[in-house]
Amino acid sequence: MTEYHSLQWTGDSLVLLDQRLLPHTVKYVDIRSYQELAEAIKTMMVRGAPAIGVAAAYGLALPVANIEFADIDSALAEVRRAAAYLRVSRPTAVNLHWAIERVMTRVENLVFRTVHELENALVDEANAMASEDVQTNRAIGKFGADLVPETATVIHHCNTGALGTVDYGTALGVIRTAHEQGKKVRVFVDETRPRLQGSRLTAWELTQLQIPFTVIVDGAAAYMMKTEGVDLCVVGCDRVAANGDVANKIGTYHLALAAYAHGVPFYVAAPLSTVDLTRLSGEEIEIEERAAKEVNHMGETCVMPETYPVRNPAFDVTPAKFITGLITEKGIIYPPFDDALKRFKESQVHMHGEDNQ
Amino acid sequence: MTEYHSLQWTGDSLVLLDQRLLPHTVKYVDIRSYQELAEAIKTMMVRGAPAIGVAAAYGLALPVANIEFADIDSALAEVRRAAAYLRVSRPTAVNLHWAIERVMTRVENLVFRTVHELENALVDEANAMASEDVQTNRAIGKFGADLVPETATVIHHCNTGALGTVDYGTALGVIRTAHEQGKKVRVFVDETRPRLQGSRLTAWELTQLQIPFTVIVDGAAAYMMKTEGVDLCVVGCDRVAANGDVANKIGTYHLALAAYAHGVPFYVAAPLSTVDLTRLSGEEIEIEERAAKEVNHMGETCVMPETYPVRNPAFDVTPAKFITGLITEKGIIYPPFDDALKRFKESQVHMHGEDNQ
Repeated sequence: MTEYHSLQWTGDSLVLLDQRLLPHTVKYVDIRSYQELAEAIKTMMVRGAPAIGVAAAYGLALPVANIEFADIDSALAEVRRAAAYLRVSRPTAVNLHWAIERVMTRVENLVFRTVHELENALVDEANAMASEDVQTNRAIGKFGADLVPETATVIHHCNTGALGTVDYGTALGVIRTAHEQGKKVRVFVDETRPRLQGSRLTAWELTQLQIPFTVIVDGAAAYMMKTEGVDLCVVGCDRVAANGDVANKIGTYHLALAAYAHGVPFYVAAPLSTVDLTRLSGEEIEIEERAAKEVNHMGETCVMPETYPVRNPAFDVTPAKFITGLITEKGIIYPPFDDALKRFKESQVHMHGEDNQ
Repeated sequence: MTEYHSLQWTGDSLVLLDQRLLPHTVKYVDIRSYQELAEAIKTMMVRGAPAIGVAAAYGLALPVANIEFADIDSALAEVRRAAAYLRVSRPTAVNLHWAIERVMTRVENLVFRTVHELENALVDEANAMASEDVQTNRAIGKFGADLVPETATVIHHCNTGALGTVDYGTALGVIRTAHEQGKKVRVFVDETRPRLQGSRLTAWELTQLQIPFTVIVDGAAAYMMKTEGVDLCVVGCDRVAANGDVANKIGTYHLALAAYAHGVPFYVAAPLSTVDLTRLSGEEIEIEERAAKEVNHMGETCVMPETYPVRNPAFDVTPAKFITGLITEKGIIYPPFDDALKRFKESQVHMHGEDNQ
């Protein structure tokens, strides 16, 4: 286990590590309502597709753990309101939708005699998802580490570590596993504008893990590929379409094009929970646009007048053709992705179907 | 003429617009010694290859305009010291070297009876270079504007406007000319980390010029090419090697690769003063590494601990194969670049040779 935790359930609250304050301040915040949680997700106090998925699952338990309900029906009605409310807090990451769907499917298929039974079912399901997330990440780390040479220079974009998941991380979990196996890994950390998840979060995590790294601006990645000899890129993802197109943090597609031009393998760590077979291609994935303030301000520093027009897409789509492989918890999928994605995803659904009995 | 000026000679001082304070504050600073000027170039109070070239030319006149010399020999010695001192203030832009070389060649080839004669020769040559820079930029603007469709979406990196030159701009001069011709041009402005020349300087200039623009983070350029229909990229340059490889602001190469992948024409506005035939390819161009503070701080905001390792190359090299055309003051050069570069450059040297008679 990592010494810091993106999220932890206490029994009646969800404790989040406020990632907006890192790396300067490690502060944990106690969340007691789904409205607070939705705000925490929107403002990126908690972030990373797997982390927000599990946080939302716990979020459904918050009302029943904190409010006295007269009867089971009013408790259920409030849980349904929480589901609708949390679902729209961020649009691009599919885990959020998937996690809420999974918990609600379970809830709607059971009959509860007491509010306490409902609470137990909600917390159990969230706990199961949290523990599956850690297992998933360990498996991704293990499969992915096989792709990392004994001595390796890796470029990583955004943050995909323990902070962006329940624990261990996805793409950063691959790097971490390779490091734990004794491989000599050094990481070029894309700072990842505008929110600087690279320089603020990934650099901080790599420091804790004692993995050598160097922070670069996003525009320097191609230069590093040309001058430093980069062995691979590994990134996370927020949603994988049925054809293997991947939505991930803005700048991922740009990085993939540079990797393609240099013949550098480009891997995406993709838990099957991020696979969305209802989107045939990346074109069908909604891309969240975030506030201009993320671009025209840096912390307290105003970079340019707020009247200047800004576009701030939070994500982009990398077409499958630029992706060397998808690292899932069931193994690595190579192109063409569609058949394997469908097969892997169906086996996952089947497995969870059994869990839910 | 533009209403603001990157640099202006007053008779005994060089007035610089302090570009570090833009866009919030328009402040002019009076420079009276070459040591102060070297510091201003190093800290990027004045920046942009053409602007620092002409600033350095005036810088050679600063000692004779401000110090009483006993005789012509001690004045000449001080000018030579100024040349050596200024030459090393920034390594990548060739204009700086070229400008100093040009002034010193003139000085060394004449005989001066008085310090006043020396001063006149120095100022005359700097004035000539300043006025040639504006003519050059106008010509680049005119040739380049022919490449811009009637309705055009353009991506621009860094700053290449009146601020980065004596006036009018190079790549931004192309956009400006197209706009003045009545073409409907809109510009995606790469913010250009780490120094934000795009969001701080280019956005400010485009606002003054009333040219529609939208600021994006550098990592969003590929996404815009895919989703918005970008017609061309146009950037400036700091040095062009004999084979057409171009050194320019970090992120340029990354942008060129994205343009290449999308079939978007990628043009480099390259005054012949940036052409350096002594470098056979981009491999031979020295790339300046700047302080980590540009990456780990944003204004007053500390992004991450200063102990975190950073690489901060200020420039990268875009290989000729990714460049659609070089826009020079004598016309557009298409690949293969080497013969035309040599021919154009030799005619420029010849022209200046005649000027110097």
